[in-house]
Amino acid sequence: MKLHGYFRSSASYRVRIALNLKGLSAEHLTHHLRKGEQRDPAYLAIKPQGLVPTLQDDRGTILTQSLAIIEWLDEVYPEPPLLPKDPLRRAHVRAFAQVLACDTHPVQNLKVLSRLRELGLPEEQVTGWAAWVNREGLSACETLIAGEAGPFCFGTQPTIADLCLVPQLANARRFGVDVTAFPRLLKAEAAAKDLKAFADAAPERQGDAE
Amino acid sequence: MKLHGYFRSSASYRVRIALNLKGLSAEHLTHHLRKGEQRDPAYLAIKPQGLVPTLQDDRGTILTQSLAIIEWLDEVYPEPPLLPKDPLRRAHVRAFAQVLACDTHPVQNLKVLSRLRELGLPEEQVTGWAAWVNREGLSACETLIAGEAGPFCFGTQPTIADLCLVPQLANARRFGVDVTAFPRLLKAEAAAKDLKAFADAAPERQGDAE
Repeated sequence: MKLHGYFRSSASYRVRIALNLKGLSAEHLTHHLRKGEQRDPAYLAIKPQGLVPTLQDDRGTILTQSLAIIEWLDEVYPEPPLLPKDPLRRAHVRAFAQVLACDTHPVQNLKVLSRLRELGLPEEQVTGWAAWVNREGLSACETLIAGEAGPFCFGTQPTIADLCLVPQLANARRFGVDVTAFPRLLKAEAAAKDLKAFADAAPERQGDAE
Repeated sequence: MKLHGYFRSSASYRVRIALNLKGLSAEHLTHHLRKGEQRDPAYLAIKPQGLVPTLQDDRGTILTQSLAIIEWLDEVYPEPPLLPKDPLRRAHVRAFAQVLACDTHPVQNLKVLSRLRELGLPEEQVTGWAAWVNREGLSACETLIAGEAGPFCFGTQPTIADLCLVPQLANARRFGVDVTAFPRLLKAEAAAKDLKAFADAAPERQGDAE
């Protein structure tokens, strides 16, 4: 398999964790987002949206969108499972993941922040926007798992929720958010970071890290 | 079941279609987003993010996030299926849905547009932002199903992809996007709108429509 990604992309980070948890290896192909390499014609032919990550399986089949990739990995390589078996628990895990993957990350990604700059907003307001989006999303997530014993977001094993949480917390810190307001999320993050699958997927451990 | 929604919310619209396709009835409770009713304490106690939709099942269990709700409905009420059986096809359907549910809709929802206004952007730029986001998302979707015979997004039956597409096209038109640029999407929309499940879920058919 080949994973088209970028060390700092949190959507790529989620997929790296999933591959590691499943014990799957992939060739990592980097597309430097700040240099616009995701807009190279060769990559646009694979992924017209010009976003990372994209996974190519061994037959060259293209998979896009991090959550869709992760659910595919979970269906094809079921061990260890990244979703609970019970439909209601699955729905709660997916809802948590979607607060981050739908309502949070896409509203503060590089493309959106660049657009805000183009519209003339000063850097302080652009960073303020990103911090606001992260605070809103993480606050919602803190509430969603307030009653969960953990130590992971949902139970004693990592799920798709943790795969979304750890990269989002890294983003939030980069934008200056005080994450100590989210003790339950930090507990889940600490449990995750103890696992080699998460540690090896961290941005600073990637070959294209700066 | 109770569905907390709003006639014009595209995420609520997706869930209404899913309920109709499954032949399930729900009591529809409206929260007028432009009047801020989603911020009422009674609703925040159910859904701390103050977003719609929220589904309460007959035991009072709370489900949030439209795609998580729809996958739960599909797991608990499997007929007719809203996802294909083949994992790769499922991944393609989910990726299409996520282009709209992650990368498009949350970047142009009422909350984001209100924030742009608060930051001092004139109305023309706010509408321009929403149109830009819709064009980007729909362009990506048009490419994703260019090779699909249809008439629906993926095959001869509606899937989660169609549930996301129809509401998003309605949004795009409201923001002045020329949707004739997306003939394959319009073909899928036409097939969907022929179904009573889609027609009955349309914003203008809801009790809270203005």
